[in-house]
Formats: sequence, structure tokens, C-alpha cells
Amino acid sequence: MPQSVQTETHDRLATGVAELSTFRDDDRPGWTREVFSEPYRASRSWTAARMREAGLEVHLDQAGNIVGRLAGRESSAPALVTGSHTDTVDGGGRFDGVVGVLGAIEAARLLAAEGRQLQRDLLVVDFLGEESNAFGLSCLGSRSAAQELTPADLERRDHRGVRLAHAYTDAGLDPAKLSEVPWARRPLQAFVELHIEQGPTLEKRGLPLGIVTAITGIERFIASFSGSADHAGTTSMEDRRDAMIAAADAVLAVRAEGCGAPVHGVATTTRIDSASRSPNVVPSLVRMYGEVRSVDPAWLSGTRGRLGAEITARAAGSGVDVGFEWSSDNAVVEAARGVQDIAGAAADDLGLPWMPIPSGATHDAVHMASLAPMGMIFIPSKDGRSHCPEEWSSTEDLVVGVRALLATLQRLDTRESTDNHRSTPQSPPVRHLELP
Amino acid sequence: MPQSVQTETHDRLATGVAELSTFRDDDRPGWTREVFSEPYRASRSWTAARMREAGLEVHLDQAGNIVGRLAGRESSAPALVTGSHTDTVDGGGRFDGVVGVLGAIEAARLLAAEGRQLQRDLLVVDFLGEESNAFGLSCLGSRSAAQELTPADLERRDHRGVRLAHAYTDAGLDPAKLSEVPWARRPLQAFVELHIEQGPTLEKRGLPLGIVTAITGIERFIASFSGSADHAGTTSMEDRRDAMIAAADAVLAVRAEGCGAPVHGVATTTRIDSASRSPNVVPSLVRMYGEVRSVDPAWLSGTRGRLGAEITARAAGSGVDVGFEWSSDNAVVEAARGVQDIAGAAADDLGLPWMPIPSGATHDAVHMASLAPMGMIFIPSKDGRSHCPEEWSSTEDLVVGVRALLATLQRLDTRESTDNHRSTPQSPPVRHLELP
Repeated sequence: MPQSVQTETHDRLATGVAELSTFRDDDRPGWTREVFSEPYRASRSWTAARMREAGLEVHLDQAGNIVGRLAGRESSAPALVTGSHTDTVDGGGRFDGVVGVLGAIEAARLLAAEGRQLQRDLLVVDFLGEESNAFGLSCLGSRSAAQELTPADLERRDHRGVRLAHAYTDAGLDPAKLSEVPWARRPLQAFVELHIEQGPTLEKRGLPLGIVTAITGIERFIASFSGSADHAGTTSMEDRRDAMIAAADAVLAVRAEGCGAPVHGVATTTRIDSASRSPNVVPSLVRMYGEVRSVDPAWLSGTRGRLGAEITARAAGSGVDVGFEWSSDNAVVEAARGVQDIAGAAADDLGLPWMPIPSGATHDAVHMASLAPMGMIFIPSKDGRSHCPEEWSSTEDLVVGVRALLATLQRLDTRESTDNHRSTPQSPPVRHLELP
Repeated sequence: MPQSVQTETHDRLATGVAELSTFRDDDRPGWTREVFSEPYRASRSWTAARMREAGLEVHLDQAGNIVGRLAGRESSAPALVTGSHTDTVDGGGRFDGVVGVLGAIEAARLLAAEGRQLQRDLLVVDFLGEESNAFGLSCLGSRSAAQELTPADLERRDHRGVRLAHAYTDAGLDPAKLSEVPWARRPLQAFVELHIEQGPTLEKRGLPLGIVTAITGIERFIASFSGSADHAGTTSMEDRRDAMIAAADAVLAVRAEGCGAPVHGVATTTRIDSASRSPNVVPSLVRMYGEVRSVDPAWLSGTRGRLGAEITARAAGSGVDVGFEWSSDNAVVEAARGVQDIAGAAADDLGLPWMPIPSGATHDAVHMASLAPMGMIFIPSKDGRSHCPEEWSSTEDLVVGVRALLATLQRLDTRESTDNHRSTPQSPPVRHLELP
């Protein structure tokens, strides 16, 4: 990429991040743009306009994803797909997801502007609502594309009791047709997602790129502690069955679980709720919300047993009963070996140092992995911060990411593939496909 | 008291508790009748009617207390006061406060019915809103009577932003005149409150009565923990500054503080709030609400220093900052030695075994202690439970309580007193008065 082109790319990416960040919820901290919110709806016209400017044919698919197509020479050949999301968590930052959408648009623009038509169609996707939302469900758009959004999911309700199906209808989408996504039903060559690392590893090692090896599995739980609602002034310390003490013990058990992971793992208590509104009652009902993540399936599969037993034993010491609701948010998903190799070779050719890296966050790529060989490219996050207003990646690092993404897509374009990698009811999702 | 009279008293108390309990908030658990709520307002007509039936002249004073007067032979003599409250905590029981109001009405009825007129006026008071309420303030009615409700208190707001002053206006009371309570400005001979123990001590020892020695002081705090809002999937355990971990450590430190009290003490974390709504962010801002109680002023005065240092040191280990807001809800208030002695002698005369006992809960008696020599009589609580739906005292124990209260009032009636025991701006509240 000549220096003059890199300067234009640099300026366009910086301007894009700045402009997109103005679509935010003024009533919330940070750069909040949650799925189905007014700022999010408003931002998507802006995103579609950027795709059109870059030379893409743009449509909104049945699942609410914005899809921009750059036509290849052979429209019947399995297509290449790249993209990410533009929604944020509450109080989040300006780069998570955004980098993968603006970076993909920029890569397509460079191909179109320089007349370097690919053999295959290139689809740039801004997936609907990737972050976990008020309905407790993440990756809405990619989940639909992969036909993994269930009727039960559509019955989920937010804190006001609104059904997810209703939120879709409100957004002009037909809940019955979310999986009717033609572009996801055609043969796909590969899916590659550019993203910020959201952790400190690349920055600490001074590397501009990471090639993702696997995306973490997530086990989430709600633990409900039941003790005895006694008067906080008249019940002696030894006579109590204090649900808050059991919850505090559990928070420390969750930390110990994360610290004990042999390969890779984190464990977090994200929230505690106590039912009582009174300032002088021993808490009798406390709920805690937590999660455990790892790219090590063997360890992660044992966490329910280990953590459940530990928390239950500690609670029993306080005379408190505990019940668990566990849910598997994601199984561990490995990136396709072939895509990892090609991305690595592309970076090597550009003289860009990189490392293989696990992803501790989940991504749209998890669901796209059931439709196509999947890979991800990470760029550094300043101080490893993410999901907070301070989230930051330099524009220079964004440019490097776009160069690596573009080179990876060009290399994938020339590979032959006879397998369309689609999952069907007859065959389970194929998650470990090798490109030939 | 003849057996036939005891039987009538028994039935009236049982019926009274049952009828009053029907005034409850159907939308809340237990027997919820919070101050200013519709069920509470409705219940007070019922209470006033019971006073009138018992032969009392009834009026609502400027502070919202229901006051029933049984005229004595010398209306100019310092009056005797007894009573308690009829509001409950959220999810509370049927006996806390109620026993002291219904018991006082019954004692007055027995005096009136049997023509045993006292020398002094007897005032039976149903104090407004004794339980800590949505405005974070307890003992509204007795606080007003003692001229201890401040203009700043009236500016307190509930969770909907409503000012306490507005709640008073809504209830038909003039916030500017709450302290203009004539009955509390006249000389008072003594205040005696009958109450359930709300703890397990009397039941464990098989004793029907406790004579209160002192009412616990309360130190309340809010601790605010500030960490770093990082991605829960990508931030390694050692790179975190997790405010929830610091809060959990603090909950255990609060327990240790209560367990370490040398004479008497309890310490409770009643609530934890975390600001984030996202399920995948390391908590960066967590608030905890706690309190420490003791009748040992020397130990209680040290709790801010001890607990503050311990919580701060543990939080520093997690890289988390912590700030405290402390408030003294009550200083330790000792019962008047003279009232304790008279109540004990009255119980002895009736052949009722009793023990001296500290009160771990606060009461209207704390504020009445600045107006008159104060004493309290406790009856047992089943399993020590209180502030919960299971709160229970047998009607037999209620009858014993009424007999002890009546005998104590009769003995206090015949004592001379030259001191009206009122606090004035020139002299601080007198809390340790001896009856002559």
C-alpha cells in the first residue's frame, strides 16, 4: 500500500470512528449505543452510507444485518465474508466491533478504488446487536444467520417485560423470518473478522497483530442464596443465617476458580442483588451473577462441578442454602487452521509481526464458524481496556489491521474450496474445517 | 388480675393482633404496613377506635402520633406515657411495635374498667413511623415529639425523589409544626414501652420478661468501591481491579468486626449494589450498606476507625479505592435506673421471673428518653425471629407483658418527681435520670 493511500486510509478510519461515536445515548455513561436503542437505529443509516460510498451494493437482510456486496468475477463462487458489529455495551467504548466494520469497509473500498476485483463476491457485514443485551442474548445477527436463534430466545423478556420478538417487530423486522438470510445460505469460502484484542497481551509484547487460535467458551450462572431474615440488631452473630456472607464467600470462590485455571481461564462475579429494602434486616435472599471463560474445554467443562461444590460447601458453613441456574453461553470454538495459516502468511509477507492468541471475548465469528472456515485478526488495545469509555486503539494500529485483513482476504480469494461448510440439520455445525 | 379478666384480656389481645394484621400491602411479602402507605393510613382509624373503646380521649397530634389520654386525679401532675408503633418494615411481622400499642391500650382499659383512676394522666401513644423508611429515617413521631427532627431531615428524598416534607403534607400534616406537640412539652413522670425482644435470649432462658438496661447505639455506613471496568473475558485475573472482590472482602471484615465485640455487638452488611448492567464487565463501582450496633459505647466509638482501616487495607490488595460515608443513627441510650428498678420490683411482686437485657434494636424509647425517665419491658420472641413474616409471640406472653406494664405504671404513678426531665437548648438531653 503506497504511503499516500495509507494516509487517506488513516484519515478515513480516524474520521469514521469519531463520527460513529457521536451516535450515543446521552443518558448513559461512556459511548453507549445499545441494540434497538434510538442512537443505534440512527447510526445504521450512517454505516450503510459509508458502505455505499466505498462502492458496495447495500441491503438490510431479514436478520437486521447490514450487508454490503463487492461483486467478484465469478458470482457463483463461494463468497468471502468479513465484518463485525457497531452496537456497544452500556458505558462502553468506541472501538469494540466498530474497527471490524469500518476496517472491512475500508478494505473493500481499497479493492474497488484500485480496480483489483476479486474472483469471489466479498460481503461486508455489520451484524445486528453483538453485545449481550437487555434480553440476555448476544450476537443476534450472526446467530440468526447461522440459524441458531431459537423460538425460545424470541420469548426472552427485558427488565420491563418486553419480549425480544416485540423488539424485532418494533425495529421493522419479522421475527418469523430472521433465519431467512439468503447470503448465509449460499456457499461461503471463509469468514474473517478484524477486532480489537480487548486485553493487554499484544501491547505488553509490542506486537501490532494477533491471529486468533480459538474463541473462549463461556459458562454463566445465577446462584441464589437463601438464609433467614432476622433483625440485624437483635440476632447475635452466631445465630444468623446470613445470605450476604454466603454470597461474599462465593465471590471469593469464583475468583479462586479463575486463578486456578491451568492453561487459560477467567472467572467473574458481575453482579449481586439483595431482595430486602430494609437497612436493619439480615439479608435472607441474595442473588449473584457470574461467569467462567476458557479456551480449554477440558477445564471449562469441570467448572460447574468444582465451583458448585465449593460455593455450596462455603454457604453451608453459614447455614445458607444455595441453588444454581447454569447456562452455556458458548462452547469453545477454534479458528480454522487454514485461515490461521493464511492470515499469518499474509502478515509475514507484509513484514508485520504477530502472535497466535486466544480470544477471551466472544464474537460474531463464533456463529459464523458454523457457516464457513473462520478466522480473526486482533489489533492492540491500550492498557488492555475494553467495555469502558477509556477503550482505545491508535489509528496507526487500525491501518495495520486493515492491511492484514485485506491481504488475508486476497489470499483466501485465490484458494479453491469444494466444501461450502454450511451446517445442515443432517450434519452438525462444522467448526474445525481446514481450507484445502 | 382475676382469671376471668385475664381471659378477656387474652382474647382482646389475640383479636387485636389478628385484626390489625389485615391492614397490609398485598403487593409486598409478609405483613407489610409501611409509614405513609395506604394500609398504614387505613389502620390508624382502627387503632384510634380501639383507644376510644378503652375509655381514652383520642387526638392526632401535630407530629402524626395518635394520643389517647386517660385522665388522672391531678391533671397538673407530670403525666405517665406508654406506647409504641404500628408501622412495619417491608416484609415484616405482626408483633413488632403492635404489642406495645395494643398492650398499652389494654392496660388503660383495665384501669378505666375497674375504676382504678391514677393520680396522673396516662397518655397512650401510637408513634408515627418508627421503622426506618424509604427516606432512611426511623422514629418519625417520637423524634418530632423530642424536637429531634431537623429541617435537613425533612429534605430527605425517597427512591422516587419525593421529599419527606411532601410525604407529611400528603398525610395531612404541616411539616413546619411537627415539633409543636403540647403533650410532649408538659412535665412527664416517665415513659415505659412494652415490646417484643426481637431476639432469642428470653426464650432460650425460659423467662417471660426482660427489663431493658440500655438501647444499642448504631453506626451506619455506605462504602463505595472504585476499581476498573475491564472486559470480563479478556482481562487476566492478575490484571484486574475488581470492586466486587473488594466488597466481598469487606462483607467478611464486617462480620469479623461484629464477632470481635468484647461485651455486646453485631455488624451487618445489609445490601450491595453494583452499577454495571452488563454481564461481561469486571465491576468497577460497587456500593455496600452496613451497620454496627452495640450497647458498649467504648467499643462502638472505635468501629469507624477499626472497620475503615480493615476494609481499606483489604481493598488495596485488589487495587481498589474505597470511600466511606458514616452516620451515627443513635448513640447508646441507657434506661433510667429508677424505671428499671420499679419495673423489676413490679414483676417480682407479680411473681414473674425476669432478667436485665440490652436492646439490640432501636425504639421510640430512644427519643422519649430525652423527655422523661425511660424504661422498656420485653416479652419473648419465638426463635428470636423479627422483621420477618415468621415473627411470633404467644398471646400468653402478651398478657404477662400487659400485667407487668400495668403494675409498673401504677408504681410509677405514686412516685414523686420534681424534675420534668425535658431537654432544653441550654442543657443537653438528660439520659440517665434517676427517679427520686
